Amino acid sequence: MTTNAITLQERFLHIRENKVFEAFVIGIIIVSALVIGAKTYAINEQILIVFNVLDIAITLFFLTEIIIRMIAEHNMKAFFKKGWNVFDFIIVTASLIPVDESEMVLLGRLLRIFRALRLISVIPELRILLNAFLKAIPRMGYVSLLMFIFFYIYAAMGSIFFSKVNPELWDNISISMLTLFRVATFEDWTDVMYETMDIYPLSWIFYLSFIFIVAFVFLNMMIGIVLEVLQREHEQFDRESGQGEAGEVHWLREHTELIEQRLERMEAMLEDIQGKPHTNSKHS
Amino acid sequence: MTTNAITLQERFLHIRENKVFEAFVIGIIIVSALVIGAKTYAINEQILIVFNVLDIAITLFFLTEIIIRMIAEHNMKAFFKKGWNVFDFIIVTASLIPVDESEMVLLGRLLRIFRALRLISVIPELRILLNAFLKAIPRMGYVSLLMFIFFYIYAAMGSIFFSKVNPELWDNISISMLTLFRVATFEDWTDVMYETMDIYPLSWIFYLSFIFIVAFVFLNMMIGIVLEVLQREHEQFDRESGQGEAGEVHWLREHTELIEQRLERMEAMLEDIQGKPHTNSKHS
Amino acid sequence: MTTNAITLQERFLHIRENKVFEAFVIGIIIVSALVIGAKTYAINEQILIVFNVLDIAITLFFLTEIIIRMIAEHNMKAFFKKGWNVFDFIIVTASLIPVDESEMVLLGRLLRIFRALRLISVIPELRILLNAFLKAIPRMGYVSLLMFIFFYIYAAMGSIFFSKVNPELWDNISISMLTLFRVATFEDWTDVMYETMDIYPLSWIFYLSFIFIVAFVFLNMMIGIVLEVLQREHEQFDRESGQGEAGEVHWLREHTELIEQRLERMEAMLEDIQGKPHTNSKHS
Amino acid sequence: MTTNAITLQERFLHIRENKVFEAFVIGIIIVSALVIGAKTYAINEQILIVFNVLDIAITLFFLTEIIIRMIAEHNMKAFFKKGWNVFDFIIVTASLIPVDESEMVLLGRLLRIFRALRLISVIPELRILLNAFLKAIPRMGYVSLLMFIFFYIYAAMGSIFFSKVNPELWDNISISMLTLFRVATFEDWTDVMYETMDIYPLSWIFYLSFIFIVAFVFLNMMIGIVLEVLQREHEQFDRESGQGEAGEVHWLREHTELIEQRLERMEAMLEDIQGKPHTNSKHS
Repeated sequence: MTTNAITLQERFLHIRENKVFEAFVIGIIIVSALVIGAKTYAINEQILIVFNVLDIAITLFFLTEIIIRMIAEHNMKAFFKKGWNVFDFIIVTASLIPVDESEMVLLGRLLRIFRALRLISVIPELRILLNAFLKAIPRMGYVSLLMFIFFYIYAAMGSIFFSKVNPELWDNISISMLTLFRVATFEDWTDVMYETMDIYPLSWIFYLSFIFIVAFVFLNMMIGIVLEVLQREHEQFDRESGQGEAGEVHWLREHTELIEQRLERMEAMLEDIQGKPHTNSKHS
Repeated sequence: MTTNAITLQERFLHIRENKVFEAFVIGIIIVSALVIGAKTYAINEQILIVFNVLDIAITLFFLTEIIIRMIAEHNMKAFFKKGWNVFDFIIVTASLIPVDESEMVLLGRLLRIFRALRLISVIPELRILLNAFLKAIPRMGYVSLLMFIFFYIYAAMGSIFFSKVNPELWDNISISMLTLFRVATFEDWTDVMYETMDIYPLSWIFYLSFIFIVAFVFLNMMIGIVLEVLQREHEQFDRESGQGEAGEVHWLREHTELIEQRLERMEAMLEDIQGKPHTNSKHS
Repeated sequence: MTTNAITLQERFLHIRENKVFEAFVIGIIIVSALVIGAKTYAINEQILIVFNVLDIAITLFFLTEIIIRMIAEHNMKAFFKKGWNVFDFIIVTASLIPVDESEMVLLGRLLRIFRALRLISVIPELRILLNAFLKAIPRMGYVSLLMFIFFYIYAAMGSIFFSKVNPELWDNISISMLTLFRVATFEDWTDVMYETMDIYPLSWIFYLSFIFIVAFVFLNMMIGIVLEVLQREHEQFDRESGQGEAGEVHWLREHTELIEQRLERMEAMLEDIQGKPHTNSKHS
Repeated sequence: MTTNAITLQERFLHIRENKVFEAFVIGIIIVSALVIGAKTYAINEQILIVFNVLDIAITLFFLTEIIIRMIAEHNMKAFFKKGWNVFDFIIVTASLIPVDESEMVLLGRLLRIFRALRLISVIPELRILLNAFLKAIPRMGYVSLLMFIFFYIYAAMGSIFFSKVNPELWDNISISMLTLFRVATFEDWTDVMYETMDIYPLSWIFYLSFIFIVAFVFLNMMIGIVLEVLQREHEQFDRESGQGEAGEVHWLREHTELIEQRLERMEAMLEDIQGKPHTNSKHS
């Protein structure tokens, strides 16, 4: 690398770290989101042209910003190693795809919406929050699998028995699962039940057992997350400060060991004074 | 200040602290709330006149009471420094605004309703409760922001794709957000979904992913509050009494330090007795 | 009291403590509940006569049982001091009230239903459970009051602004409170909202702020109960067994005090051996 | 047993422990579940024949697999002692029942659905999860009983008073309980209430008190599970690692006892040196 390039890299690093630049980026993201929101209203042609120009400006700004951040980094590998950089890169490049045909216009607008997600990668507190959410996912994996198994079995049963009662709700296993999700959210579930109870009077057992099982599993899922978050927060707190109860207990343990060593020495001295042989070996 | 004024201030201070006066104020607030409630029923002209007279009496009483409290305070600055005094002052002065026109009558009645809120500033337990609520708000700030971002993105998507399906629900981004809030409360959300599934059969992914994300974020919000409140209550408990487990552990730490100091002295004595030089320096 | 009466009391006490008698009482209560349940079905005349005879038998049995328990007790005062005895006495005597008129038949049947509640007073585990519930009530008192204030203010506002939009939902403050409770349970709340939004387009602020406040207060109420129950269970656990962490910490505190006393004595001895004067006073 | 049989048992034990075989079993279970799911769609005759052949193959495979596991075990008693083996045995044998008549075809398909449950017995994490669920059940037993009593009493009341208002919802105690469950899930509960309020204007007390009691009991039930799961997880954590706070406190207790013993010995030595008699007996 030439000296000139290094200077450029340092200058860009300087820009990236700048608080004012950061605030400006947040501002542009918000403007970008507002433009998308405003476009959903019925607006006249002239304002639409202003919006389109603004949209191109925003797209170019985002492109410039990500290029600055890429150059500021030592190399491309280091840039793409950080998950949030990849996240930003995908969002920015996705909105670059030219969409002209009437069919694709919707896709183009859709990709622009996701630029609002960049707010998460820019504000550190939101980044921490989302990281905490992502960490809680594995904990819920097996619980979700268990829930899916119960949904699948109930959906298969529902589809076999009720498909002739109301094909719109129970025609096949995927529609049945959607219907069961509706039952799980208590949304007009009695209408679904009363309909099947006309033909299978005992079908209330099907619905009530399903509601109890799903509520039970969901509850455990919730507790799982609570425990996970609680534990993580506690660990962080203990690591940061040794002033908590756990920190004090740990201090006590270490110092009790020191006291034991000292007492051992003192006992040996006393025995020496008394003129007795050492009896240290019999104590652990 | 003249001697006379000081006496007046002291007398008013005396009135303010009086338990009977406090109970009387609470009584008047309840009467004020009941009058407002009673006025919503169909009542005949004569009772309405009684109510209007009562209303003027209550307004005057509240005015008198706040003036007493203002004089009882050393100066105006000290009075307005306390948030609850400002709260009371706004409520009392707002209901003084004369409203005569038919249009403004509603506003006048509205301002009188808020006098019931004075119950919170008068009863200390409610004041503590509301303070606890207000303290939990910052904790939820970023979570609310994250939730808003997801609402905004989903609303933009909904508005772009579904505005032609049902303009009443998805016409622009603000109506879409209201519709999504409705989906989040599970209120007839399947009706909303089935409607869009006729045109976009895969739109169930939109609704289900939204429900999962919002439920997930809301859950975390809830946990945040729980943790916040738990921590605050624990701190208060530990401060008030040293008898809890954390208090005992802290006592142990302090006394273990004393024991270590004493043992150091004792070891030095033993070494002195033994006739050996001090070897203290090698132990921390 | 004569010797005869004491014997009777002892015999009744013996009956009351008897496990078989207890099981028999539980059986009778269940039969009593089943008879009440069975009567809600369309049954023919003959079975109804059997049920009526059974009903009289059950009433007499409950009367006999409570008299046995009253005599078994040393005196009437001691009997009525226990809340659960009063509870049983009211339920039993209430079902004795003769009801002949067609109007009062419903009341008679109603009073007999409450006999099923005696299951709670007979089974100790249920008694403990209900006691725990009752203990959690004061904790929720002020939160409920706060919630009521918000309901009242919103109901007054709703009644003033929306009474002309839909008198069925907002005619007066009590109907408005019922409507708001419905909104709080998310039951067709959007129908209520859309109706008022036609005349007041900004009324969604009214509903959304109400839902947020109520959900917030309710959440805190829930946390209050969780904390209350957690604390109570922990205290009970610590009292019963000294093996928990809190028990071990308490043991440590007591023994650390003993160690300190012993060390003080030992230091004094060492000083004595060294031939120095006691310097005990300078250490706490 | 002959040497040949033992060799066979060992070979089967080897197969059962094999990771590849385990993955293959999981695969077959998933295929089995997918076939059941696929059958709920409208499929042509030829694919149906393929599915039926596949179904027979799966049934035979499951039969073979359970026989291998039975032989691998030392004896039949040991096999049936494990709950999960019994669980698998019932599922496998149930799907062997030949069902030919049109009426019984549904039952045959139903029994095949439950084969998806074998996923739980095969994947260890799901087995642990379900065991945790089952352990939480006794804790909820009495709470469920209490909830049932309240449901029963309210259903009896509802049936007595409202059966003439709407027989479809309140005809007898079992229909009333279903209606109350619907009210508890907030599903169109206001429609139920408004209907009865036309005849009994005060019946809102019935519904509101029911909702409060049920929500209250359900909340406690939830807390019960949370506490149960929390306690179980903590115990497991403490047993596995002595590094937690509870482990450190336990270590402290044990070592404090050792320190006390050592100090007792040292004090005795000091007294011996001082030439005084032992005064040990006065300290515990």
